[in-house]
Parts: sequence; structure tokens; C-alpha cells
Amino acid sequence: MDLLIAGFGVVGQGVAEMVEMKAGWFSERVGEELRIVGAFDSSSLAKSAKGLRGGELVARKLSTGKVGKSELVERGKRLIEDLEYDVLVEVTPTNIDDGEPGHGHMLAALKAGRHVVTSNKGPLALRFRELSRTAEKNRVQLRFEATVGGATPIVNLSRELLMGESISSIRGILNGTCNFILHRMKEEGLPFPQALKEAQEIGIAEKDPAYDIEGADSTCKATILANAIFGLDRTYGEVKRVGITGVTEEAVSLAGDEKKVIRLIADVSRGRLEVSPRLVPMGHPLSIGGTLNIVQIHTDLAGEITVAGRGAGKLETASAILSDLVALMKQDSPRSSSRR
Amino acid sequence: MDLLIAGFGVVGQGVAEMVEMKAGWFSERVGEELRIVGAFDSSSLAKSAKGLRGGELVARKLSTGKVGKSELVERGKRLIEDLEYDVLVEVTPTNIDDGEPGHGHMLAALKAGRHVVTSNKGPLALRFRELSRTAEKNRVQLRFEATVGGATPIVNLSRELLMGESISSIRGILNGTCNFILHRMKEEGLPFPQALKEAQEIGIAEKDPAYDIEGADSTCKATILANAIFGLDRTYGEVKRVGITGVTEEAVSLAGDEKKVIRLIADVSRGRLEVSPRLVPMGHPLSIGGTLNIVQIHTDLAGEITVAGRGAGKLETASAILSDLVALMKQDSPRSSSRR
Repeated sequence: MDLLIAGFGVVGQGVAEMVEMKAGWFSERVGEELRIVGAFDSSSLAKSAKGLRGGELVARKLSTGKVGKSELVERGKRLIEDLEYDVLVEVTPTNIDDGEPGHGHMLAALKAGRHVVTSNKGPLALRFRELSRTAEKNRVQLRFEATVGGATPIVNLSRELLMGESISSIRGILNGTCNFILHRMKEEGLPFPQALKEAQEIGIAEKDPAYDIEGADSTCKATILANAIFGLDRTYGEVKRVGITGVTEEAVSLAGDEKKVIRLIADVSRGRLEVSPRLVPMGHPLSIGGTLNIVQIHTDLAGEITVAGRGAGKLETASAILSDLVALMKQDSPRSSSRR
Repeated sequence: MDLLIAGFGVVGQGVAEMVEMKAGWFSERVGEELRIVGAFDSSSLAKSAKGLRGGELVARKLSTGKVGKSELVERGKRLIEDLEYDVLVEVTPTNIDDGEPGHGHMLAALKAGRHVVTSNKGPLALRFRELSRTAEKNRVQLRFEATVGGATPIVNLSRELLMGESISSIRGILNGTCNFILHRMKEEGLPFPQALKEAQEIGIAEKDPAYDIEGADSTCKATILANAIFGLDRTYGEVKRVGITGVTEEAVSLAGDEKKVIRLIADVSRGRLEVSPRLVPMGHPLSIGGTLNIVQIHTDLAGEITVAGRGAGKLETASAILSDLVALMKQDSPRSSSRR
């Protein structure tokens, strides 16, 4: 199975390292080679039909700022159409204004009969139906475990292991940065700006934290779940969204008096799609502290299944991408099926 | 996909109800009929090549004590060899002395080229390797999500979704009865016998509670995980096992002084296989109260994934069996592959 990696930031580097770690396992257990035949970032391209070493790509990126030696003279979309590979691993940064360049990359790969595995939320939160229909039409797969919950296997658990169940709702915490801030406000009685500053200092929040604290990240993930699990056709902008910037230390303290905590909850079902701060009783699974992601999946037979894991991180995101690659590989001969 | 159900206690009845609930979904979504073509208990047999109504089987069992109208003149093993079906759903009661009759049932079905889906822990905790090798040799599958954790998808999550990961350990609570008792001892300061009595009164513990409170049930499950996930070849009797009968109210209280609780923890890895009461810090996921099952799966890429769900119950166990049936069905044409 030959991979083309689009984007070589933290996630792309994690994928390259993962492939190097797991190549032996793949040939031994699945009887198939897992190779990187191309990787590009915004200014360069590395390619080799014989396969590239993940570790070398990462070393070059870290020392030169570029994944490839050659200048990138063509646009990504052209590369995606012209190169030979089985799966596009689309890991360029999320853009929630128009989904580009990820959206164009994915569409080009699907139309060329290639599977797409991605961690890029923007295109799926903005144009899910167009992308999934294009995949269907071209008889390839669009897989996106890494877009929701990091290493927490929410998408594949819901769609594959619980395939026979009727899922009525998925509720949970999908942003570790917000959860860390709310947890620290409660534990230390900190006002919001101070808890945010602390999160920034230890690298849990970005310098520009708006995407997390205003609920955009959680909302992208909730939108993807609504479309993928509940068959809806929603886009990011249609979703009711309240972030945590208005959560005061007084509100946290009042909640505490009632043995409750405030958590930013994504609430997804066929009839309801919303991200907002909610009161959660202490001791309830969704009252979890720290940076984990956690969801509760409600079904007709199983009742309630709770799953929690690391919501972000280089290898954690690569873990979710690996789970999608393994699923593709378990199907017969991906190369032949993707190119028929 | 035609099912033969062996055993028609609570789990068998749950399977019959589940098939009735899900038959429409199967034909619509998977394009295949899901039918019960036979069901037997210790004294009777019901069969029909055209398919039996699950609700009618349950009604007859509840009113007459027998699933079938006809007397069972043949032994189950003979029926399993002679009837026409695709999957044996083996749900007779667990027997941890010799694994019978489940072991004989499973072996007969596998040798006849039929898949086996089971909730019966005994045969898998005693003779895992013999059964899994027989399945392999006959190119059919032995699936057992329902043996560990009830509706909590521990086996398939570890073996399928996390297939590419290297799992270093699985730790958790696999018996809801013990957990309920330990939780009540802590919450109300009850001595063990009184907490047990309460659990019996509300139907959470059996009249003969030994199998649960002496750790046998958890140990069966831990043994199955050791064999299935870590490729070991262990049997129930070889596993270090300490139940909860020796946990005193003083021990629970002393643990509380250190902000810890006592929980019966199954600890499974390549080098360690043990079920025993352990101290767990309050607030840790494994300090959970009530009757849920919960495990933490440690892997090389994902880090730690926690999954929790209902560990027992009629529809909950049927849910786990459904997940195995769906997995079989997603493979091409189970009938032809099981009979080649």
C-alpha cells in the first residue's frame, strides 16, 4: 500500500514516523508493504516509487524546513492527479473558511480513484456530502478517524463495531484545551484569562487560542459526527455554538456548590446538534479533568458506551490514521480495487 | 445468514429478541437475511429452514419452560453436526470445570465448517488454543466479544480497531457484581456480608455468589484476553486469582483515608496475568462505582484508551453477539465461505 502524504507539519511527521515503526508489522502480519512514495509541503516535494524513509523525511523537514529537496513547482492538486499511489494521507492544516487546500486535495484524489485518509477537519465540516458522494461514485473510501477525538476511536467504533446498533446520541468532550482550562478554573479558583495563560505557557493552548476556546474545533468535530454517524447534511456554520470565553469564575464556583462542574459538551443526535458549556454532576464520566477527550454513545441494545483517550498529539493522531489504513488493508487488494 | 442457537436461557432469549429487532435492518443495510433456523435448550428443539420468529420462541420458553415443541431426542452435538446453518450462537451456561457442553458444541460446529459466536466463557478460558486452531484449520471464525465485558466492545476494539497498535497491557474491572459490592462498602461503610446481601436482594448478585465474589468470572475474562489479545496459551486454573471475600470494612476505610478505593482489577499483559483487589486513587477512571465494566488499553501509539459499558444484561450481551455477526456478515458471502 503506497501512501502520498499531503502536508508535513506535526501530523505528517507523525505519520512518517508511524510508517517507519509499523512497516515490519505490516509485511509480517498483513503480508503487504506499507510505503511512503511521496510527501509534499507548501514549498517542496519528496518522491520515490521505491519508497521513502520516514525518519529521513522528518530529519530533513526539521533541519531545512522542507520535506523535499526539490522545489514544488506544481500545485498539490496536480501532484495528486499525476503521481502513482494507493492512499492520499491528507494532513494539511484545518481551514474552516473554505476548507482549502485540503478540500481540493481530497476531491482530486477521490476522482483519481484513490482512497483518502485524513485528519483535516475543515473539508469534512464544510463539504462532507460532496466528498462522501465523490468517494462512493469512484468506489473508493474516505476515512477520517483522526478528525474526531485524536487517538480515541470514536468514528470507527460507532460506524464499524456498533454498525448494527441504532445510535440515538453521542455526547462528550472533544477539545482537550477547553477541558484543561475549565478544570483549572475549578481546581484553583482561577479566572478564565489566567487559566488560559497557564494553558498557553505549558503548550496546551495555542498563542491564538480562538479556534479552541470559541468552540470552533469542537463544532467541526460535532458536525463531522452528525454527518458521518447520523447521516445528516450539516455544515459548520449551521451549528449552534457557544465557547467557554464567557464562563466566569463565579459560574464555576456556583456550579461547585451544587456538586457540578462546567464542561464544553458536544451534543449530537438526529434532532440536536450543539456545542455549549453545560453543567455536569461531579463523578459523572463527562466531569473528567485534564486534556482527554471522552464521549458517551447511546444505543438501543448496548445502552451507553463510554470511550476516552488522548485527543491530540503527533503519534496519537498517527494512531487514528493507522487504524484507517489497517481497515483499508483488510479489504482485498486495495491497489487493484482503487484502480479498476 | 442462518443461525442455530444453542442454549435458551436469558442470553439465548436476548439473541432471539435481537434478531427480531434487527432483521429488517440486516436485509436493508447488508442485503442479507438474518434468520434463526434452529434453537435448542437442554430438553427441546425448535427448527425451521424458513426461519423461526424470535418472539414466538421466547414466549414459548417463558410459558412452557421449553424453546421447542418437540422433545430433544438427540444430543446437541449431533444436531450441530446435522442441521443446516451458517453460524452457531453458543450461549449455554459457563462451566469452568470442564467447559461442557459448550466446548463440545463449539468444536462440532467448527469442524463442520460453521462460524461460532459465543458468550460462553468456560470453553474459551479452558481450551482456547484447541478451539482457535480448529477454527483456523476449518477456515471459519470463532468470535467471542460477548464473553468479556458484556456490551463493552473490548475484544473487537483491541483486535480490530487497534489491530496495528502494539498493546502492552489491558487493565480493568470485568465484574459488575464485585464492583457494586465494593462501591457500597465504601459509600455506606457496610461490612462485606451486608453489602453482598443488598446486592442479592436487588438482583445484582446470584443466590450462589461464589463465581463472582471469588473472582472466577473476572479470571475467566482475563484468561480470554490473555489468549486472544496477547497470544498466550493460558488456562483458567493457572491464573493468580484473589476474590473480594477477604476485603474488610477496615481495609476499605483505611484506603479511603488515603483517598483511594479498593477495586477488583484484572491485569493482563504478556508478562502478567492476575485478578486481585487493588488500591485505586479516587478520581482515577478505574475508581468507577456501580455495575459498569471498564478497561484501560495501553498501546504504543494511542497511549491509553479507556472504554466502559454495561457488563451484563440480556440485550447488552445480545449487542456484543450482534457486533460479531455484523463482522462476519461484512466478509463476503459467509455461507459459501463457511461451506467451501
